[in-house]
Formats: sequence, structure tokens, C-alpha cells
Amino acid sequence: MARPEGGGPPGETEMEVSLKYLSRKLDEFAKARDWEKYHSPRNLLLAMVGEVGELSEIFQWRGEVARGLSNWDESEKEHLGEELSDVLLYLIRLADVCGIDLGEAATKKIVKNAVKYPAPPKLP
Amino acid sequence: MARPEGGGPPGETEMEVSLKYLSRKLDEFAKARDWEKYHSPRNLLLAMVGEVGELSEIFQWRGEVARGLSNWDESEKEHLGEELSDVLLYLIRLADVCGIDLGEAATKKIVKNAVKYPAPPKLP
Amino acid sequence: MARPEGGGPPGETEMEVSLKYLSRKLDEFAKARDWEKYHSPRNLLLAMVGEVGELSEIFQWRGEVARGLSNWDESEKEHLGEELSDVLLYLIRLADVCGIDLGEAATKKIVKNAVKYPAPPKLP
Amino acid sequence: MARPEGGGPPGETEMEVSLKYLSRKLDEFAKARDWEKYHSPRNLLLAMVGEVGELSEIFQWRGEVARGLSNWDESEKEHLGEELSDVLLYLIRLADVCGIDLGEAATKKIVKNAVKYPAPPKLP
Repeated sequence: MARPEGGGPPGETEMEVSLKYLSRKLDEFAKARDWEKYHSPRNLLLAMVGEVGELSEIFQWRGEVARGLSNWDESEKEHLGEELSDVLLYLIRLADVCGIDLGEAATKKIVKNAVKYPAPPKLP
Repeated sequence: MARPEGGGPPGETEMEVSLKYLSRKLDEFAKARDWEKYHSPRNLLLAMVGEVGELSEIFQWRGEVARGLSNWDESEKEHLGEELSDVLLYLIRLADVCGIDLGEAATKKIVKNAVKYPAPPKLP
Repeated sequence: MARPEGGGPPGETEMEVSLKYLSRKLDEFAKARDWEKYHSPRNLLLAMVGEVGELSEIFQWRGEVARGLSNWDESEKEHLGEELSDVLLYLIRLADVCGIDLGEAATKKIVKNAVKYPAPPKLP
Repeated sequence: MARPEGGGPPGETEMEVSLKYLSRKLDEFAKARDWEKYHSPRNLLLAMVGEVGELSEIFQWRGEVARGLSNWDESEKEHLGEELSDVLLYLIRLADVCGIDLGEAATKKIVKNAVKYPAPPKLP
């Protein structure tokens, strides 16, 4: 789950997973189980809020946490990766049933943010 | 923002935006503004919860919402796309500062979910 | 847990539980377990977000839910009461460690809301 | 908004605001504006999630925050009191439309927690 430090040759962990790939996988998943009927926008939104809660529980009693989580053990990082994924997957699915192209929207939002918060000029 | 119905030739809206692409863009964005010092895991988590709140506000007084949002106007869908994006961008950034490969984690989670919830056999 | 319909004589379920009473109970609870050291504002906030997630999970796959929850069974209502309580207790505790008088703040907020959203005149 | 330090004679800030008092006020508020039709359980839950987001925004870029918020200015504390109140008011209203007696449920939950997490014996 952890990204190899120092990089190394591109391997499986360097794969470029796209939002559309995950979206297609989620669509197949729901269809194969006949779960599409449960996937209304507000159902998915509340399911995502539930996962945000589980993600928050991981961080709740720790006080400030340093970047990189150097003192977390592997099972804790594995758990964190799963909860982050659960939020992501419901978010993608929510965008999907709303007919929103999330990759396009996010790309546009970064551009909009760059206009809203211009970077200071680089000093020579 | 809306995905073209009926498909059509692949164009800009069909691009495969990867999680790593967004992650790199966010990293450049933070570096260019010297914002990395604010991007601790719990700061980013709370910022994400803030965006989940803004996303929920869009849905709060509507009662049940039909898939596809057929009766929403374009500006409402645009707004929804931005709030979905804000959640996504903080989520990606949170995974990043925690050293989690979100694309890999999400791909694994879908496999795990498929084992946990086996699809029923297809009838002939 | 359910409020008796039609009222009836005031009994235990009609007691006027105050925010300060719950605040005192939570303070004693934390002191008796030496848990005050964990009760920083952001720890409590994230714990509350965790409980909001558990509350949302109760509602996530149900579609629209009618007021009064007439078709929920008693154990579901009991569970709901517990999750609502968990959110409330962390919220009260959070206000407390921040030095905010929540009862006073909430009373003022209702007044402020009444000014912001004036009630229409009653028709004769 | 802040509770007077060192106490002082009981005054308005020491009033015992009950959950039922706030519940009645909210009920009158909704009735006077004909807003009861919007107050379905899931609408109120999402509105509460929206307020949890606004509360989180107050804490999002601060890093760890010390109990008592000694270095916050009065307007920040006032704002915090309002956001805590917004969460509380929607929570109370949600319990209400679900037919849950929140004061009773919270009192029971504290007892249940005390059984689940017994306090260690006091040393002599």
C-alpha cells in the first residue's frame, strides 16, 4: 500500500489508475449484484459520510499526526488505505449516478483554484 | 461538466484522468504557494470534512433525488461538480501526505469487496 | 426511547435534561478515567465526525424516511437513539473544552435565526 | 459566549438550558414558517452534516488547538459558538422528527458507557 520511498523502477505500484477505470469497475460491481436500485444520489452520499466517519475514527485520538506516518505500523496503514478507498469509491459512484464527469470536474477545479490563489513569482 | 449522453466520439470529456495526475498537480500547487506546511494529515482531513459538508448542503432540502439529476439546471450541476471535486482533491492530497497510493489501495479494495460480497451466478 | 404519543402524565421520559447536566456527567466521566488528556478540541471534533458517520450509516440505504419512523422496529430506534446521543455527547464535550456555553450559544442562535428568517404574519 | 472563569454569581450564563426547551423552540420556529414539510429525517441529517462541515472549517488549518482556546479572539469564539449551535439544533430537530427523546437517550448512553468502560478504583 505504501509508496516506495526513493522511487525505483516503475512497477505495479506506479500504475496510473484512472477515475474512469474505477468508475467502470464500480458500475460492473453494482450491475452484477443488482445493487443499482440502492444507488440513488442521497443513499450514496450518506454512505460516503459513513466512510468519512470511519476514516476520522482512525485519526481521532492521536493528536497531531506527522506526514508520512512514520511511526504507524503496516496494519494501521493498510486500514487507512482501505478507509480512504471507501470514501473514494462512494464519491466516484455518487458523481457517476449524478452524471458528473469527476475527472474533468476536478481538472477544471484545479485550474479555477490556481486563478483564485495565484502563485507568488519565483525569486531569482 | 455533464457526460454527453449517448456517447459520441471520444473527446476531452472522455479523457482518462488518473489519480496520480491529480496528485502531481496538487503537489505542484502546494509547493508553488509554500502551502506544504499547512498540509498535515489532520488539517487535510478536516478540510475534507468541510467540503463533505458543502456537498451535503447541495442535497439537504431536496428530498429524494433521481439519478441523472434530470431536473437540475446547468449551474446547479456545475456547482455539484465543484464540490465533488473539492472532496476528491483533499482526499487525494490526504492519501499523498500519508504515503498511501490511493489508486492501488482502491483497486485492492474493489477486489476485497468482490470477495466479501460474491456476485450471484448469472441465470442462463 | 420513543416519546409516548398523546402525552400522558409527566414521568421519567418527560424530564428536562439540561445541557449543563450532561456536560457535568461527561466531565466526571473523563476525570474518573483520566481521559481528560485525550479530550483536545480536534480529537473530540474527529470523534464527533466518527459518530456522525455511524448515524448516517443508519439512514444510508433506506431511501426517503418518513417522520416518526413508523415502520422501524424498536431495536432500530434504540440504535438510532444511541447514535444521536453519541453525536450529542461529543458535541457537548467539544463545546466544554473550548470554553463555550452551548446552551447560551444555542439560545442566542435561535434568536438570531428568527431575525434572519422572519415569520410571515398570521392570517386572521 | 465564553463561560465566565472563576464562576461568579449565577446569572443568565448559568441557566440550565434543557434539550426539551430547545426542541420546543425549534418546533415553534418551523411551524411559524411552515417549514415542517422540509424537516424530513434525511433532509435534517444532511443539513446537520453541512453544519459539521462548517464547524470543521473553523479548525481545519490550525494544527493542534489547546483546550480553552486562549489565543482565539472573541469573534472567533462567537463564530465557533454559532457553528456548534447549528449542529446541536439540527441534531435536536432530527431526534424530534424521529420521535426520539434525546435527553433520555443521552442519559441512558452515559450509563451504558460507564458499564462498558468501568472507572478504575480510586487509590487511597
